[in-house]
Amino acid sequence: MSAPLIDKYRKMATFDWRKLKAAVEGEEHVRLKAEVVAKMKSEPVFQRDFRVLSREEHREVVHQRWKKIVEWGLFKDPYSDLENFHALTETLEAYDQGTSARLFLHGNVFGAAVKSMGTERHKELVQQIENNEIVGAFCLTEIGHGSNTAEIQTTATFDNGQLVFNTPDVGAIKCWAGNVCKSFLRRFRYTFCLISAHSATHVVVYAQLHVGGKNEGFHGFVIQVRCPKTFQTLPGITIGDMGSKPGCWQGVENGWIEFKNHRAPLSALLNKGCDITPDGKYVTSFKSASEKQSVSLGTLSVGRKQIIIFRLGIIAKGMMACTFASTIAIRYSVARRQFGPEKGAENEIPVLEYPLQQYRLFPYLSAAICIRIFQKTFVEKFTEYMMRVMMGEKSEELSEFSKEVHALSSGAKPVATWLGVESLGEARKACGGHGFLHMSRLNTLRDDNDPSQTFEGENFMILQQTSNILLGKVSSIGTINTPMSTMSFLNSNPSKFSSWSSNPVDDVLSAYRYLTYHLLQTTSSEAKKLKGAGKNSFEVRNEIQVHRAVNLSVAYTEHTMIDWVQQFVEEVEDVTVKRVLQKVLNLFSLFLLERHLATLYITGYASGGKFGEDLREKLRHAVAELKPESMALVDSIAPDDFILHSALGASDGRAYDHIMEEFRKYTNEQPKWVCDLAQFLQKRSQTSKL
Amino acid sequence: MSAPLIDKYRKMATFDWRKLKAAVEGEEHVRLKAEVVAKMKSEPVFQRDFRVLSREEHREVVHQRWKKIVEWGLFKDPYSDLENFHALTETLEAYDQGTSARLFLHGNVFGAAVKSMGTERHKELVQQIENNEIVGAFCLTEIGHGSNTAEIQTTATFDNGQLVFNTPDVGAIKCWAGNVCKSFLRRFRYTFCLISAHSATHVVVYAQLHVGGKNEGFHGFVIQVRCPKTFQTLPGITIGDMGSKPGCWQGVENGWIEFKNHRAPLSALLNKGCDITPDGKYVTSFKSASEKQSVSLGTLSVGRKQIIIFRLGIIAKGMMACTFASTIAIRYSVARRQFGPEKGAENEIPVLEYPLQQYRLFPYLSAAICIRIFQKTFVEKFTEYMMRVMMGEKSEELSEFSKEVHALSSGAKPVATWLGVESLGEARKACGGHGFLHMSRLNTLRDDNDPSQTFEGENFMILQQTSNILLGKVSSIGTINTPMSTMSFLNSNPSKFSSWSSNPVDDVLSAYRYLTYHLLQTTSSEAKKLKGAGKNSFEVRNEIQVHRAVNLSVAYTEHTMIDWVQQFVEEVEDVTVKRVLQKVLNLFSLFLLERHLATLYITGYASGGKFGEDLREKLRHAVAELKPESMALVDSIAPDDFILHSALGASDGRAYDHIMEEFRKYTNEQPKWVCDLAQFLQKRSQTSKL
Repeated sequence: MSAPLIDKYRKMATFDWRKLKAAVEGEEHVRLKAEVVAKMKSEPVFQRDFRVLSREEHREVVHQRWKKIVEWGLFKDPYSDLENFHALTETLEAYDQGTSARLFLHGNVFGAAVKSMGTERHKELVQQIENNEIVGAFCLTEIGHGSNTAEIQTTATFDNGQLVFNTPDVGAIKCWAGNVCKSFLRRFRYTFCLISAHSATHVVVYAQLHVGGKNEGFHGFVIQVRCPKTFQTLPGITIGDMGSKPGCWQGVENGWIEFKNHRAPLSALLNKGCDITPDGKYVTSFKSASEKQSVSLGTLSVGRKQIIIFRLGIIAKGMMACTFASTIAIRYSVARRQFGPEKGAENEIPVLEYPLQQYRLFPYLSAAICIRIFQKTFVEKFTEYMMRVMMGEKSEELSEFSKEVHALSSGAKPVATWLGVESLGEARKACGGHGFLHMSRLNTLRDDNDPSQTFEGENFMILQQTSNILLGKVSSIGTINTPMSTMSFLNSNPSKFSSWSSNPVDDVLSAYRYLTYHLLQTTSSEAKKLKGAGKNSFEVRNEIQVHRAVNLSVAYTEHTMIDWVQQFVEEVEDVTVKRVLQKVLNLFSLFLLERHLATLYITGYASGGKFGEDLREKLRHAVAELKPESMALVDSIAPDDFILHSALGASDGRAYDHIMEEFRKYTNEQPKWVCDLAQFLQKRSQTSKL
Repeated sequence: MSAPLIDKYRKMATFDWRKLKAAVEGEEHVRLKAEVVAKMKSEPVFQRDFRVLSREEHREVVHQRWKKIVEWGLFKDPYSDLENFHALTETLEAYDQGTSARLFLHGNVFGAAVKSMGTERHKELVQQIENNEIVGAFCLTEIGHGSNTAEIQTTATFDNGQLVFNTPDVGAIKCWAGNVCKSFLRRFRYTFCLISAHSATHVVVYAQLHVGGKNEGFHGFVIQVRCPKTFQTLPGITIGDMGSKPGCWQGVENGWIEFKNHRAPLSALLNKGCDITPDGKYVTSFKSASEKQSVSLGTLSVGRKQIIIFRLGIIAKGMMACTFASTIAIRYSVARRQFGPEKGAENEIPVLEYPLQQYRLFPYLSAAICIRIFQKTFVEKFTEYMMRVMMGEKSEELSEFSKEVHALSSGAKPVATWLGVESLGEARKACGGHGFLHMSRLNTLRDDNDPSQTFEGENFMILQQTSNILLGKVSSIGTINTPMSTMSFLNSNPSKFSSWSSNPVDDVLSAYRYLTYHLLQTTSSEAKKLKGAGKNSFEVRNEIQVHRAVNLSVAYTEHTMIDWVQQFVEEVEDVTVKRVLQKVLNLFSLFLLERHLATLYITGYASGGKFGEDLREKLRHAVAELKPESMALVDSIAPDDFILHSALGASDGRAYDHIMEEFRKYTNEQPKWVCDLAQFLQKRSQTSKL
């Protein structure tokens, strides 16, 4: 094996990757992450190989890792030590999203529900949760009533001083998916995973509360489901697993639960704002059914914020997917040589030299960096918003802030996660056959990231929230003024293309402003037309999606992403870092805009072939510009080899050595079924001789 | 659970799905497939569940299935009974690509190599191969010399009347991937899988032949590598597995092999046209080194044809992927209800009613049908070509036929396989969370189909063969005349868009003709420009790919696909079937063309927003037109439930019942690690009380 070429490529860069990393992530963040990685590296339970684990093995190993992290005591309340929280979350997410989900869902979903809907009566339980003495799950969705939680069918009936839980039919069995809180005006769509198949001792469960023959509606309860010593389910409770799932999610024990006359104490009711007296009277301080429902869902107090925090985390998943994809594929593209201008093995060039290979991979490298910058900026702005909420501010501007945060996160989650999954698919293909081996990790990572596209609602569904908010602004065009200023450009009709400037990013932003403005106009007028034709609002909302509202949401989001990254880059002090980040953003912005080229023509931004030809030429140029910087850029984003865990993508560039090292583990295997094969062949040989 | 709505949707159709199936597939084919399915259903070894198997388990089960099929004796020479061969292949491919690969590679790759390069001396071996008394593997690629097979480093040295095989260094270890036969003018790129890790008794191996101190170059050999009784490797041979792989490929034992002074008899040399005398003289009838090399690769006699047969099979994989994706997702979209114009669970409508859901899924339904028709037509035309070759015809026209078959297959393989993988990704997302469960099968199927994009060469690489052939036609524009007439339209400059006709497919074909013509012109003039600027042909070839040659190949291919399907539909006799197939083709053609909209503007086919707006409106209309037909169309393409094997996609439409049936299998599980969890929780509880 010849010496790896990776160092040659590293030396081409015009900047110091460590400086860029510090500028983008912050020195403290880089240091804290390294600490967590070092901690994990030293623990046997975090070691791994490329074997495919069975469902049982996978669950066990995630349990062991979860236990270790709980023992470390690192995973604390996000608000108490934000820096540490971010470093730990990012490292854990990069290491294994399954383990990270297990930690997050117990604390932030189950725990938050008990805290927000419970009262003094549940204080001891809250302490047990925080101290990890019990394991909690969250049961809202029912198998046949995914989207209609307000009308779920599970019942909790007051009987003789107790609550009796029942699942009236198969369709009411609680399970994980596609859950939408209708109470929340159809605008917020959650998917809550239920972690309970094997380890939950307690669950938060939603049911219709019946007292004295009357249905008091949808309420939340917290009940014990298993004996914490024997782990036997309590009488009247059946729990099961949902079976195998792809990628790291095999390690997550999503479950289902069925009730048959399960009796729980009255204290099971999460009784903020309502209660049942021991003699069976339902009392409530809620003014309306919808207020009660909102509290039952915990939305009034924590819902909105939780969703945004959740979404910011999912956006980071998209960033991480692009990071893995480009790191593995670009490093391998230097190890892998194929053809050359002259015949002979010694003349073969690294596949990274091919313009098409660069065109396939560099956009995702730029996306990894730009999504990170965007996400970080978004977290900062959201933190500002949260501070004002927590200070008790109640203003028109803050409510506008909330709406804007919502619109942008509803767009950025789909954009980032689609890019993430797409990048892993492209990287695999660009790595050829070896990319398909488990030891490349690319296909497993695609499975790991695949659910990010439907988490918290299917991407297209969530995009509707962005377009709905934007469409709501049409009537106030001219006076739109939002705290993050992401919509201000809609106040005036942006001008058409006239000529290219010296800065591609400015050109791209101009095009996006025109595009977004015109998509808003056409979507809005299409809606009016449909309304005029007698369609109801449900139909209208559905019929404006294709080519209209969907594109509108994406264009608005991408404009903001590029805009914010540009603002960030302008502030970078180190000139060499700034220059390379400009190249990165050039590519990212041209790459995104090119996908809207047809719509730019349709909306009339430009006419004539030259505009599109120029745009594509600029895109090819931006790709080529990144080549000398690409390896150092990869170094600046690549996770530690221990986290990356790819035979193709290791930082030493010795892909083939790592592949062979792995291959050697399977030397001269002789599985037991070859005896059967030997007998079979012999039999055939004997028969043929007869 | 309410009764399934699927029948209501079935009744909406304007045609009889059985008639359509017969028209598209042929009655005999449908009958033969049903026979194979019935045979498989009755065998315990073909039963399966949704568990994820370990590498060991997976290999064993594939072995058992392979054995059963060999015992049945169904898998014969394709040419002896083509109809049966197609029915068996399609059923097996749909059932499990891994099992099918094992059968194909032994017979058609290993066997073909021995037959084509061997002589009388290898007759007994050939019989053993045909009788499945031995298991063969094909070893060409080396780990460090993937792309440069002519310069592989494995050596076979004549010594004392024997051949001594050696692997000089780690880089020369034989393995599977990315193999390109350079000798074959860089135009043919194979990826040969090596089936040997556990079960091969013999291998065809390529090595440099050294006789009397002289390197006589690249030769093929067939050697025994294991004792067929004990399955121990022979002295001087080390064999290993390549580790885990995603999807069904986990069941395929791709391996690597290393030689250290392995001694084989002289008869190991596949000696067509060359030989070594017992006293160590190398004799050859080859006139040139390149002729020898071609024979060594078996390409002169079977290579070209083998490649096309292989490719036609891969195109069918793309079709099958679209078939699975649309069957599962469309059936589930009727079982799954979400929201409605009014509140209340009873008002919820099936998600198939949403225009966006239709827009996401119906194009792949149309692709499943159209790719099948195209592939079938292609097989027929190729069979005609083969007949002429076998009749001994040697004409200019036949050589042109070969070129055209090559150009089209090099385009259709990427187009079909990209669509296939894309369809499975989209279907999964459109099925939400439950789509991610293993029991939906969507992600596993995506992994199963993923390699089709890099089989026989990475898709972008193969596309170059199409554009190279097309570029070679530039000088003869005006007189282009190919046997399948796929390029004739390039003879005249097609006219720009003027107005829409009453037939969308005609409109689409006109646009494609313009597009292909102009992409050919711009790609060609770009190449000239680069040549003029002093670039060598290697650089030119690489630099014209992005936005030029790639788009050219795709446009040419899609034009032919649509054209052939249109010709097929015109011939359909049953009016109801014909009408619905026209709707299917409308959608397929508009769906494909819309992706080129930006390039249509750039090349000047149309200007002004209206053209694009109209095209998209027609596309949305074509989608909506298919809704009433969609469920019957699914029935016409769906494999038997036994083959489909998806809890979401069963033909009875009872997705939730099947899901719960599967869930129930995991009721009240108690894995052994929960004891550990119980102890852990108790310890935490005790500590907190201190």
